[in-house]
Amino acid sequence: MIVVMKAGAAKKDKDEVLKRIKELGYKPHVIHGTTRDVIGAIGDERGKLVLQQLESMHGVESVVPILQPYKLASSEVKKERSVIRISDTVAIGGPEVIIMAGPCSVESEEQIIESAKAVKAAGAHILRGGAFKPRTSPYSFQGLEEEGLKLLAKARDLTGLPFVTEVINPETVELVAEYSDILQIGARNSQNFALLKKVGQINKPILLKRGMAMTIQEFLMSAEYIMAEGNQSVILCERGIRTFETATRNTLDLSAIPVLKTKTHLPVVADPSHGTGNYHYVGPMSLAAIAGGADGLIIEVHPDPERASSDGPQSLKPKKFARLMEQMRKVAEAVERSL
Amino acid sequence: MIVVMKAGAAKKDKDEVLKRIKELGYKPHVIHGTTRDVIGAIGDERGKLVLQQLESMHGVESVVPILQPYKLASSEVKKERSVIRISDTVAIGGPEVIIMAGPCSVESEEQIIESAKAVKAAGAHILRGGAFKPRTSPYSFQGLEEEGLKLLAKARDLTGLPFVTEVINPETVELVAEYSDILQIGARNSQNFALLKKVGQINKPILLKRGMAMTIQEFLMSAEYIMAEGNQSVILCERGIRTFETATRNTLDLSAIPVLKTKTHLPVVADPSHGTGNYHYVGPMSLAAIAGGADGLIIEVHPDPERASSDGPQSLKPKKFARLMEQMRKVAEAVERSL
Amino acid sequence: MIVVMKAGAAKKDKDEVLKRIKELGYKPHVIHGTTRDVIGAIGDERGKLVLQQLESMHGVESVVPILQPYKLASSEVKKERSVIRISDTVAIGGPEVIIMAGPCSVESEEQIIESAKAVKAAGAHILRGGAFKPRTSPYSFQGLEEEGLKLLAKARDLTGLPFVTEVINPETVELVAEYSDILQIGARNSQNFALLKKVGQINKPILLKRGMAMTIQEFLMSAEYIMAEGNQSVILCERGIRTFETATRNTLDLSAIPVLKTKTHLPVVADPSHGTGNYHYVGPMSLAAIAGGADGLIIEVHPDPERASSDGPQSLKPKKFARLMEQMRKVAEAVERSL
Amino acid sequence: MIVVMKAGAAKKDKDEVLKRIKELGYKPHVIHGTTRDVIGAIGDERGKLVLQQLESMHGVESVVPILQPYKLASSEVKKERSVIRISDTVAIGGPEVIIMAGPCSVESEEQIIESAKAVKAAGAHILRGGAFKPRTSPYSFQGLEEEGLKLLAKARDLTGLPFVTEVINPETVELVAEYSDILQIGARNSQNFALLKKVGQINKPILLKRGMAMTIQEFLMSAEYIMAEGNQSVILCERGIRTFETATRNTLDLSAIPVLKTKTHLPVVADPSHGTGNYHYVGPMSLAAIAGGADGLIIEVHPDPERASSDGPQSLKPKKFARLMEQMRKVAEAVERSL
Repeated sequence: MIVVMKAGAAKKDKDEVLKRIKELGYKPHVIHGTTRDVIGAIGDERGKLVLQQLESMHGVESVVPILQPYKLASSEVKKERSVIRISDTVAIGGPEVIIMAGPCSVESEEQIIESAKAVKAAGAHILRGGAFKPRTSPYSFQGLEEEGLKLLAKARDLTGLPFVTEVINPETVELVAEYSDILQIGARNSQNFALLKKVGQINKPILLKRGMAMTIQEFLMSAEYIMAEGNQSVILCERGIRTFETATRNTLDLSAIPVLKTKTHLPVVADPSHGTGNYHYVGPMSLAAIAGGADGLIIEVHPDPERASSDGPQSLKPKKFARLMEQMRKVAEAVERSL
Repeated sequence: MIVVMKAGAAKKDKDEVLKRIKELGYKPHVIHGTTRDVIGAIGDERGKLVLQQLESMHGVESVVPILQPYKLASSEVKKERSVIRISDTVAIGGPEVIIMAGPCSVESEEQIIESAKAVKAAGAHILRGGAFKPRTSPYSFQGLEEEGLKLLAKARDLTGLPFVTEVINPETVELVAEYSDILQIGARNSQNFALLKKVGQINKPILLKRGMAMTIQEFLMSAEYIMAEGNQSVILCERGIRTFETATRNTLDLSAIPVLKTKTHLPVVADPSHGTGNYHYVGPMSLAAIAGGADGLIIEVHPDPERASSDGPQSLKPKKFARLMEQMRKVAEAVERSL
Repeated sequence: MIVVMKAGAAKKDKDEVLKRIKELGYKPHVIHGTTRDVIGAIGDERGKLVLQQLESMHGVESVVPILQPYKLASSEVKKERSVIRISDTVAIGGPEVIIMAGPCSVESEEQIIESAKAVKAAGAHILRGGAFKPRTSPYSFQGLEEEGLKLLAKARDLTGLPFVTEVINPETVELVAEYSDILQIGARNSQNFALLKKVGQINKPILLKRGMAMTIQEFLMSAEYIMAEGNQSVILCERGIRTFETATRNTLDLSAIPVLKTKTHLPVVADPSHGTGNYHYVGPMSLAAIAGGADGLIIEVHPDPERASSDGPQSLKPKKFARLMEQMRKVAEAVERSL
Repeated sequence: MIVVMKAGAAKKDKDEVLKRIKELGYKPHVIHGTTRDVIGAIGDERGKLVLQQLESMHGVESVVPILQPYKLASSEVKKERSVIRISDTVAIGGPEVIIMAGPCSVESEEQIIESAKAVKAAGAHILRGGAFKPRTSPYSFQGLEEEGLKLLAKARDLTGLPFVTEVINPETVELVAEYSDILQIGARNSQNFALLKKVGQINKPILLKRGMAMTIQEFLMSAEYIMAEGNQSVILCERGIRTFETATRNTLDLSAIPVLKTKTHLPVVADPSHGTGNYHYVGPMSLAAIAGGADGLIIEVHPDPERASSDGPQSLKPKKFARLMEQMRKVAEAVERSL
């Protein structure tokens, strides 16, 4: 960490900072600049972060961290890319681009079975569907809960597709883990640390969505929470950040894909449905994400979007999804991946 | 709700929309415009929101909601302002501006007692202090947990100050409610709906912080979650939103105060400590919040910020806080409030 | 336009609004809702916008525009896509993806000639290079000005590549137009209306960059400024918006590409160099932009980025650019375009 | 400036960086950390900024600037606060809070005279009014231009109020300077460097508005542009930044006031009218700005907002403005200023 002193800081203040750096277990190293001094604090600052306190000392202008605050998620610590196995035939993070598809919410047996068959026929690898729904309004449909999990399991039995579903409460983590193949942590729970710790204690892959106002560094810190509890199977999902633009529901930050590929060994997927909020834009953004290096996509597909309990406007009909699968395959091949 | 049709939409498409509006229990009303038709859907759209589905129908350009989606929190539904009683002598939302002050985290008996005495002496009304800490890093100090609650209760016994403390997990809501006078929902849990529902079922006031990427409408929807479960004692807290500006930790959106005062009857307080992240700016922003109409403030005060386990750089020392209390009193009087 | 009245607005207030709507030349149409009235104002609201005034009338809650405020740029008004011819062999907006490449600034004859030859050899269609530089600091290199234009013309003579260069002052529009094939309006001047009007009066294509805080609707309004003066040859360029994320210099909003393709007939290109600010991410985002439907790209290439007068960190070396051209060609073909 | 090397960077790469730092005229100083080296470059980095180039060198992870890039605007360079004299009786930056008020646009002689008399009667110090209007739409009212300047001068003659008006084109700077007492640079031109340079060459105070996506550092760099040309009379104006929140037209960043007071000696004023876009919120935010330390305010006042050519919804009627003046006076006194 680098401590920048104010121009003309008193010697007494500097001495106090040096003393405090040593107290905290670091070795100070002073650089005398032309207008001010800069003090390096040598030592492993990860897992401590306490040096930030120095900002409240007299004569200190700012404290600049040098190391990234995550370890287990870092590509410096683990150099080979992680490949996360979901089933005998499906793994995320390898050469194949993995497509997760299905409705926003599980609404009925008929709806989820029809959806599962449709996305399977089009070539998707994993079924998605929500049983516990985090909705902005308490008056909106909140999901079928355990009944929804049972219907997803039934769809899996019929189609052979593993499924991913969201968990929203530490109390139901074990229940959801019992049924599902991947547990999703939604954007609104991306810094729900009680929930992150809990899913860190189970033995199932976690699909962690980026929060709407989350920096890439904070995103990796949330992954670190899960990993620090023992669960290394974390799949990162870019799903759009909140910006001033209202033409799309969120702003899908595709540049997060190459940035994450540089900083972490974990696989990275994208969610063009929530990222855009509009089915017209899902196709182009799916193709863009694959070209930009995504290891997979999660796409909302619904047999009857006009009657969907949630997220109708951003859901593809099965026919349109099947066409998109063809186009995605071509783009995947153009960037030397398969699908 | 208003459905805007595309220019030149087919009659068939329009007929389908009219039919669907009726199916959903609304009465359609068509306005023929110069380039396109606009269809009003008459009926109470709150608590349903399903009309949004129509956006995925052929020929529809967009769906524009007219009503606010919250009811219990709305100043249209309850016209008189809510005053939330905390203790025999303290109430938030009345003519008096209420000051909550204390350290970010409870660190030790000595630290919390010293803090409580200092803020009491300066004239604060409520003690703040964290026992369960939601930290961005799994390696940062996570709080003293129940031990911290006990120390807060001890500080209350000694000073007579009621206290507010954060709850981060539905499983510990009852435990925290047993000790504390106000339960805080932090910014990162502002859309943790499982937690919101749980605190909606207890009989203690809730201090609800605005999320970093939360619109004012979503903020009121989170309050609605708590109120829909039965707990009407919700205090809203503006604590800074995330923007591109990095000179401050967050951007304290003080205009949220007059906006909220227009839209809801609930009291509104501000958190200039998290809002700015820098103790230099806490004073001016505290004064600004009071002048702008805040019903109270929550301010971080620590006897030794350089050694604080969290949030040192934004904590005031007791002496500085006491001076600020004097200035705040003058500004409160200038806007015809007391402190 | 739709005027939403407050719940329980007085009849007198409603009558005033109806009267004012008629005064402004619109036909009012009232819908009586369950809690409030909504008044449609029928008439062509484009080119007037004055209805927004009604928001300050008694009893009015809000005014909701229905029509987009642009005409000439709108795909409703002109249905076929615009193809903008740059030279005998190069046109933007057709089936071919067009690559503009070169250094941020023209620094010397040797540097611009070497760059032009390198990007030509790799297959680029257009040379880019700045002669007038808008720099955040008055102490940074401000460009070679007219001398730079002459060097660009020399590079064009040697390679046959047309060139695009930025214009930053209405006073120099004619000078820049005399030399260049395309005039660029930079992000910081995207709402410099004096400059937009001036380039609207010349007969050369304009590359209009999106401002850092510009909505897509405002972007099209800036294009409309140019078109309203007579110049219909506007190429839109997404170059990243400003968000809270700091891992990239800007957040490249690739979803703007499909959104713009829906709303306007004008061609859309992307600038992954400014969009990311880091040469590591330029490759993946270039591929993503093409897959997402971009009609072209503008990419910074410099023979010696470590010694560049500006934007070194985001510039590709010629060898890396040549490899990227190969990859872009494959992705273009995968989405049925050529390059 | 601090150069952070990658973990395990090769010695060869480090040597290249050291060599390059010396070539650029700095003295390198290496700190050997536990996982990586950090290299300080000692020397005055302001006015050069070229060190950023090093980011494109092999083995370099990032380059962290230490010094602020502005000099003339910096409170480190000039310690006493600047007081900018506008007329014999009015100065901005001293103990008195200065109120600028008037309509968005000059529309007619009657309108501007009536406005000037009204704001004068209420106690305002300076008249505001736009003659050249930068409008988002080419079809909106563009201002009365020179005729508007003449009417403002007439209003000044009648009331004794100096006036501030916007200039939008380098070509008309001299014309506007001839008539007006303060020249305003609007938010959309805040990085129009050609215009900034031009107003830096005249001898009149400049009111510089912060751009919608402008960091505080960039804001000071734009002030530096003006000052570097010789004009030291720059008044900074916070007028709201663009964020995700849509309940207000912009997000008025009042914390910019104390931040700017720390970093610069220039006076700082606020614009609550554009900051909120809604006359309901102008009052509370005016009071908040004064309590937060603003040296002045610029407020839109219009005799008939419902018929205003621009910005009606955010304009106060004269009576409401007069009441607000009373309240502002009390708050100013509470923070030991006069009004």
